[in-house]
Amino acid sequence: MIKNPRKAPWISIVGGHNANSETEKLAEEVGKLLAEKGAVIVCGGLGGVMEAVARGAKKADGTVIGILPGSSREKANEYIDYPIPTGLGHARNAIVPLVGDAVIAIDGSWGTLSEISFAQIYGKTVVGLASFEIKGVKQAKTPKEAVEIALKSVKAYKSGK
Amino acid sequence: MIKNPRKAPWISIVGGHNANSETEKLAEEVGKLLAEKGAVIVCGGLGGVMEAVARGAKKADGTVIGILPGSSREKANEYIDYPIPTGLGHARNAIVPLVGDAVIAIDGSWGTLSEISFAQIYGKTVVGLASFEIKGVKQAKTPKEAVEIALKSVKAYKSGK
Amino acid sequence: MIKNPRKAPWISIVGGHNANSETEKLAEEVGKLLAEKGAVIVCGGLGGVMEAVARGAKKADGTVIGILPGSSREKANEYIDYPIPTGLGHARNAIVPLVGDAVIAIDGSWGTLSEISFAQIYGKTVVGLASFEIKGVKQAKTPKEAVEIALKSVKAYKSGK
Amino acid sequence: MIKNPRKAPWISIVGGHNANSETEKLAEEVGKLLAEKGAVIVCGGLGGVMEAVARGAKKADGTVIGILPGSSREKANEYIDYPIPTGLGHARNAIVPLVGDAVIAIDGSWGTLSEISFAQIYGKTVVGLASFEIKGVKQAKTPKEAVEIALKSVKAYKSGK
Repeated sequence: MIKNPRKAPWISIVGGHNANSETEKLAEEVGKLLAEKGAVIVCGGLGGVMEAVARGAKKADGTVIGILPGSSREKANEYIDYPIPTGLGHARNAIVPLVGDAVIAIDGSWGTLSEISFAQIYGKTVVGLASFEIKGVKQAKTPKEAVEIALKSVKAYKSGK
Repeated sequence: MIKNPRKAPWISIVGGHNANSETEKLAEEVGKLLAEKGAVIVCGGLGGVMEAVARGAKKADGTVIGILPGSSREKANEYIDYPIPTGLGHARNAIVPLVGDAVIAIDGSWGTLSEISFAQIYGKTVVGLASFEIKGVKQAKTPKEAVEIALKSVKAYKSGK
Repeated sequence: MIKNPRKAPWISIVGGHNANSETEKLAEEVGKLLAEKGAVIVCGGLGGVMEAVARGAKKADGTVIGILPGSSREKANEYIDYPIPTGLGHARNAIVPLVGDAVIAIDGSWGTLSEISFAQIYGKTVVGLASFEIKGVKQAKTPKEAVEIALKSVKAYKSGK
Repeated sequence: MIKNPRKAPWISIVGGHNANSETEKLAEEVGKLLAEKGAVIVCGGLGGVMEAVARGAKKADGTVIGILPGSSREKANEYIDYPIPTGLGHARNAIVPLVGDAVIAIDGSWGTLSEISFAQIYGKTVVGLASFEIKGVKQAKTPKEAVEIALKSVKAYKSGK
């Protein structure tokens, strides 16, 4: 686990709870790379992309926070270190992108699009990896590129303000 | 004002707080037509599209509910009959599309896209008028067509249960 | 229904969803008196005190808004004119006392106490009727007295600021 | 920091943001004792009791999560390891007691009372230390006793399922 989370960059990962094996591979790689770079990972805490990214992070001894829609910590996937139940249902989608300094979107459906939208409202950099191709989302071709763009934006953000 | 709101269809209008005069005309016409058809109108209660649709509705003696992000009823535009302050900030975007039976999106930016996304999560019909052209959003060319599609979906929905 | 809700005082009623017949009588009388005085009534929209106060209000042609924890307007009791589903679960307790200018608490349990607490955080007058006797809650002996204290505080509030 | 947070008991501490030195001493001792027992500590992340309990926890190398009302991780006090901004304002009071398995209330005012109320709604054990003396809150005379009652209730709760 990360020694000094307050000094680390925090990256929110948003993506669908239904993910095929290819998408899961991408998410797992993103999680692993972020953990290797010392980033705290934030996600929705459930299955699919959320589980794959957390599994990848734990392979590199990372730290993962899961912001849950329901009321019980037990509902988080097994790779989440810190499950945060909100009891808010879908409105928790407003919180996931708020917790990170930047957002990486992987695949996903309407829930993911709501989280991308909130990230943009909050003025955060959003990187897309095999996800929505909308104006304002920086497209990455590989997990490595996605992680690089996200982390670079945080540095700019931290030094810039 | 509507005599029997519990028996009326409720339509949520989502759209930007910055709107040019052309967009405002569309929104005003949508509000007027919905009011003439006896629908309760729900919106975010602030300026731009939210104000134009409410102004249109009041021209036809309609009823308008505004779901506000802030903590004070006074912040609603002058055409809102029932301002509902939530104090939730941007998370109120999860509520606006939940209150209506169907959603009409007019122009708009990221806030609107978050509301369209929630409407889709909730399984509600979303009609787009000069707004986002995304798969799953039914495109209308005129205010009249937008209102027709929205109201028709509600009837189907109501008779379906 | 109230002709001009934006000029009316709005009073939130908080109280338990389990209420005995005596409590229901008190709540019904409060609802009727508030409606006669032209106040918009806000409540949680479900059963017990929430239903009794709404039933009383409708006897005097009042207007009642129900802020619901769930996702469906249909879950509101039959006397609610404007059901507002929030989908937030118990967190909707933060909204009920925010919507009114003052709060009347009738009987109730922990949910009611959370709503009284939020009302105090918001700086609103809270009147207790057969409810919690805590410092900061103005005790009323009758529905008439509760309504008088609540409405008087709104006038002071409106003219004072 | 705690090695295996998913296997640890999680205790939410609620209390006022204004605390005198005596109250702060109590809170600091509660934080230290909980950390020594291996519990994850959850609080509102700001000043007063929230800061004192976190400071105490860090003296024993504990782990502290702060559920913030605002939108920025930076607003958390310096002893919070994991700040979770919610952007929900006062409605975040519904989340703080939801995240822990049991709740210890120390001193506090209306915000604390709202959190105690939510804890009771959720069916969690609430221990009071120099705080509200209400039916349903188990009174402790010392930090040690408060921690013992809270942790004992979690064991009972965990073994009970």
